[in-house]
Amino acid sequence: MERPRHQGMAKNTYMRWRLPLVCLLWEVAMIVLFGVFVRFSPEADAHWEEEKRNRNLTSDIENDFYFRYPSFQDVHVMIFVGFGFLMVFLKRYGFGAVGFNFLLAAFGIQWALLMQGWFHSFEKGKILIGVENLINADFCVGSVCIAFGAILGKTSPIQLLVMTLFQVTLFAVNEYILLNLLHVKDAGGSMTIHTFGAYFGLMVTRILYRPNLEQSKDKQGSVYQSDLFAMIGTLYLWMYWPSFNSAISEHGDAQHRAAINTYCSLAACVLTTVAFSSMLQKKGKLDMVHIQNATLAGGVAVGTSAEMMLTPYGSLIVGFICGIVSTVGYVYLTPFLESRLHIQDTCGIHNLHAMPGLIGGIVGAITAAAATEDVYGKEGFIKAFDFTGPYAKRTPSIQGGFQAAGIFVSVLMALAGGALVGAILKLPIWGEPADENCFEDDVYWEVPEDEESDVYHMHNPDKPTSP
Amino acid sequence: MERPRHQGMAKNTYMRWRLPLVCLLWEVAMIVLFGVFVRFSPEADAHWEEEKRNRNLTSDIENDFYFRYPSFQDVHVMIFVGFGFLMVFLKRYGFGAVGFNFLLAAFGIQWALLMQGWFHSFEKGKILIGVENLINADFCVGSVCIAFGAILGKTSPIQLLVMTLFQVTLFAVNEYILLNLLHVKDAGGSMTIHTFGAYFGLMVTRILYRPNLEQSKDKQGSVYQSDLFAMIGTLYLWMYWPSFNSAISEHGDAQHRAAINTYCSLAACVLTTVAFSSMLQKKGKLDMVHIQNATLAGGVAVGTSAEMMLTPYGSLIVGFICGIVSTVGYVYLTPFLESRLHIQDTCGIHNLHAMPGLIGGIVGAITAAAATEDVYGKEGFIKAFDFTGPYAKRTPSIQGGFQAAGIFVSVLMALAGGALVGAILKLPIWGEPADENCFEDDVYWEVPEDEESDVYHMHNPDKPTSP
Amino acid sequence: MERPRHQGMAKNTYMRWRLPLVCLLWEVAMIVLFGVFVRFSPEADAHWEEEKRNRNLTSDIENDFYFRYPSFQDVHVMIFVGFGFLMVFLKRYGFGAVGFNFLLAAFGIQWALLMQGWFHSFEKGKILIGVENLINADFCVGSVCIAFGAILGKTSPIQLLVMTLFQVTLFAVNEYILLNLLHVKDAGGSMTIHTFGAYFGLMVTRILYRPNLEQSKDKQGSVYQSDLFAMIGTLYLWMYWPSFNSAISEHGDAQHRAAINTYCSLAACVLTTVAFSSMLQKKGKLDMVHIQNATLAGGVAVGTSAEMMLTPYGSLIVGFICGIVSTVGYVYLTPFLESRLHIQDTCGIHNLHAMPGLIGGIVGAITAAAATEDVYGKEGFIKAFDFTGPYAKRTPSIQGGFQAAGIFVSVLMALAGGALVGAILKLPIWGEPADENCFEDDVYWEVPEDEESDVYHMHNPDKPTSP
Repeated sequence: MERPRHQGMAKNTYMRWRLPLVCLLWEVAMIVLFGVFVRFSPEADAHWEEEKRNRNLTSDIENDFYFRYPSFQDVHVMIFVGFGFLMVFLKRYGFGAVGFNFLLAAFGIQWALLMQGWFHSFEKGKILIGVENLINADFCVGSVCIAFGAILGKTSPIQLLVMTLFQVTLFAVNEYILLNLLHVKDAGGSMTIHTFGAYFGLMVTRILYRPNLEQSKDKQGSVYQSDLFAMIGTLYLWMYWPSFNSAISEHGDAQHRAAINTYCSLAACVLTTVAFSSMLQKKGKLDMVHIQNATLAGGVAVGTSAEMMLTPYGSLIVGFICGIVSTVGYVYLTPFLESRLHIQDTCGIHNLHAMPGLIGGIVGAITAAAATEDVYGKEGFIKAFDFTGPYAKRTPSIQGGFQAAGIFVSVLMALAGGALVGAILKLPIWGEPADENCFEDDVYWEVPEDEESDVYHMHNPDKPTSP
Repeated sequence: MERPRHQGMAKNTYMRWRLPLVCLLWEVAMIVLFGVFVRFSPEADAHWEEEKRNRNLTSDIENDFYFRYPSFQDVHVMIFVGFGFLMVFLKRYGFGAVGFNFLLAAFGIQWALLMQGWFHSFEKGKILIGVENLINADFCVGSVCIAFGAILGKTSPIQLLVMTLFQVTLFAVNEYILLNLLHVKDAGGSMTIHTFGAYFGLMVTRILYRPNLEQSKDKQGSVYQSDLFAMIGTLYLWMYWPSFNSAISEHGDAQHRAAINTYCSLAACVLTTVAFSSMLQKKGKLDMVHIQNATLAGGVAVGTSAEMMLTPYGSLIVGFICGIVSTVGYVYLTPFLESRLHIQDTCGIHNLHAMPGLIGGIVGAITAAAATEDVYGKEGFIKAFDFTGPYAKRTPSIQGGFQAAGIFVSVLMALAGGALVGAILKLPIWGEPADENCFEDDVYWEVPEDEESDVYHMHNPDKPTSP
Repeated sequence: MERPRHQGMAKNTYMRWRLPLVCLLWEVAMIVLFGVFVRFSPEADAHWEEEKRNRNLTSDIENDFYFRYPSFQDVHVMIFVGFGFLMVFLKRYGFGAVGFNFLLAAFGIQWALLMQGWFHSFEKGKILIGVENLINADFCVGSVCIAFGAILGKTSPIQLLVMTLFQVTLFAVNEYILLNLLHVKDAGGSMTIHTFGAYFGLMVTRILYRPNLEQSKDKQGSVYQSDLFAMIGTLYLWMYWPSFNSAISEHGDAQHRAAINTYCSLAACVLTTVAFSSMLQKKGKLDMVHIQNATLAGGVAVGTSAEMMLTPYGSLIVGFICGIVSTVGYVYLTPFLESRLHIQDTCGIHNLHAMPGLIGGIVGAITAAAATEDVYGKEGFIKAFDFTGPYAKRTPSIQGGFQAAGIFVSVLMALAGGALVGAILKLPIWGEPADENCFEDDVYWEVPEDEESDVYHMHNPDKPTSP
């Protein structure tokens, strides 16, 4: 068997001038925009002592930094190591998975600070940023990492940067519609991050459909070591998801509760994932793809409701269902989507983010609609849903309706945005890989010589080496 | 050399119906029990604003969440990545190590929330859970992960779930006896977690003794990459151990002190581990097994005393001793236990958890017995040992005696419980692997095709491939 | 091609008595010195209740532990996993990279607690340690890990311990000169950690110059898996760097600001690293060496100024520049240093730490010199630069001058110290490896048999195995 490597590269994947140009120009743009717009929030500004006096704070520990920084760091790990390594499962695309994720996320967080800042932290012509902005920027980029999962191995780094630019923009618009116009709660982002990110990515990969992708089918699988690397990603996502869902909740009980609910949902999800992974396989063996992915669906699906009084057993039920839905999705839906709908979803984000995200939105709507003053307490009720000011007269059932509306808006925005961005990415100027070179690091990376020849030997053990 | 793979499977390791059934039924049971019993603690409940008023708290930062959540996340990483990857060292059991650890821990934390909740957080018919309960559940499961280390590679996932069910139950009983009846201090769990978990696991593996285990001896070793993966586990356990030992200590100085003592003990332990690893080997080379394991013994051995006034130099002494004891154990005791006592201890938990756990219990007893009001201060003395209410008249030496009693109770409970559970696991219905298939992922996991054949080639480099 | 393994070992690398002796004697010395000098700080001592009263603190949350412990743990991960795994990139030196880093850091933190304690936390004959001391000890060891990067693969573990002993000592002296005598600000250690550590290591490797190092050139590269392992190191350093630069800043706004500035600088740095990695390569492909290293330069270069009012766009500019400087350094400077100046810098610390460290010192001096009461506020200005007591009359421009002086002192101390220590390490008694055995774990480690033969097969696929 001969590996088609350098021959047949009909496509021009030469990055030498295009990629540097995009990176440098865009980074210069970031500097200019940051220079014009971005300043420190009062809690990060050297005038903090005065701020403390104005707000009658007696201790530095009241600085939002101490409420949120540990969660921020956990979220940060999820974005860079969690998503990055989760996608390392492909045998020959580890550099691309972790490296391109690094690149797009590093660009994305800057652009997200600006986009989200204009919508949410804009005061007197300046965006004032603090630790909560950093978390939100990471969240926003999380939705890009999700979409990346659908097109993993099939795009150039420039395409990924272009997608990031547009997706972050649309994310911020969608988030603004949900949080500010619909006054929807979505602290863990079932709708804004997962549903949006997943349908966006699925639409992009649909537009970028490659009929001849089977030419690189031999590379679209894992090897033993790459599956172990991927488990690093899985476990960090799984362990830190309670931080993800609680990171921007209100101080106090809401953060505390969100962490507990997420912990419970994720635990249940592991059990049903294992059950169905074994059950849906003739030999009854476990499939690493399910363990790596479906075990996380429980975290996605309590993203909206975790900070509400979902209760621990409610969380277990959600996790229970999502482990099943997600695993079944990997077994039956992914092949169906590819063969019938021409959606080539490398990481199966439909199973891990799209369906659990929808479930999360629905669970959130129901939990909100079912809220009572009895369960939340009078103050807790108002605080939990922020029923103040213009929203003082909202009832739980109305809130539930708006929550449901948020799901639809997110899906529509994602599909429309994904179609648009997919069309842009289809332009033949971004240096995408040829069909036979998908899922192959060698296209965009200097791959160590030795290893390449080692792998060569493994596939051709009877041929001598020419070192 | 031919690898015996599918032939000779006299044992029925077919999991398709048994494993799903256990997972689903047990998870349903969890949901029902959580529904009946588990609610949020006042600090995670939406009534928090009222709670704050009742307790005269002026800030949300007083919520226990902010005292313990960072430590909780560190402990969480230790359980899932720490223990999971530490056991990845076997060349062909990486999926089982990290995957089964994931499964049993995810089930175990749910059951532990219930069992520990009934004993410790039961109010008016409900278990009220907060972040401290999550930490304790992780701790409890830690003892199961330890026991898993002894039987690693030799059991089916169902056996592991059964063991988890029983061990968590017995853990909670033992913990109740120690903490509530004997009024023993053991914040880092030298006795409740390590001693109990280790002797439990050693007894289980003794009962499950396999006289013909040498049939899979070729797989009971590491390869270069698997040793590096295992170092990820080692380092996360090592780095986060200060969080482990301080996670449930009293707020303020006790948490602070526990972290410092653990930091010191672990540092010293590395030096003596390296010294003895080199010294006990003819060629004077270092052995990865020792570096991966014995370096952690110092954390185990200050589990009881870290929150006491052990002092930094006391911690160094404990770490110094434990690095030696543990390394010597790996070199001399493990082979002895296997050949003479028929204890097949895959990960050497006797050296990493049993002996250091005993030392930890003893050091705790001595440190408690040596406590004086002079060293602790009048208030600090009472607070450190909780000499209030019915225990107001305890003296340090009496406390030391009770601490020592706690060691014996833990060992006895572990041995009796391990014998019982071992007997249950011996029933021929759980799908355990045959002797020649131990330490082999292929029995319970879909292992990627390519990699298998690669490994095959490596072992048979002169045979051509049939791709 | 035959691998020269055991033959030709003119050098005596037998560690059996030397290494244990050093480890045990030095650890005993630590115990004695800790016994004489080290006690708990008031915040970690059981007298904390009295301390609280004396300082009018109303809550345990005011304990410094809660301000700094999460950052401490992040720094701890950077030192042990970050630096350890970053250096795993070599194909046959993974054990040495992560294992020796573990050893030297575990010893170094103990010695650093003493050395830094004598200079900074010495009261009434005792060193009083708390969480800030642990962070500082980790910082100090960080500079040793940096120096280790220059000599990676070319020294024995004893040499590393000897270097650690001296470097920690000199670090503490240099730090004392900068922080106490020059009253310089350097919370993230651009000067004290990076500049000092890098020039120290470069001088050591210069003195230890090996003219025949090309004999092990085949091992001085990476393989596919080792590059992925190294990315774990990279990402943890990158993600947690905001914690590094903010860990010992003043409570409140300074910690908050330092984290934000570092986050921004690092994000920009990734973009320019990618740009120049692609641009400087004929094929336009990305080089993992750059992604693994140069992306971190932005964190180094805001080490001094991150806690100042550098502003987010200022941080972006610094990161922008450093990604370029560092990548260009890897491509052009490292070969130049080796061929012309005989500086064999295994990890390229000149590009990652030396140049960015200098830039960091300069940026810090400029930022300090440019400070105004307008930007900082009256109180903030004094607090930020600690212009109190004998320094009450310092102006920003004078402070800038002292900052600049700090750079020179650090470089001079590093070069002088490195020359001295290099000379000591050149003594033929430490068991250094022969030229042909550099970058080879087999010299000091028991390497798993199977893997060795596997690798052997890969290089010699046509030779049969003798198992």
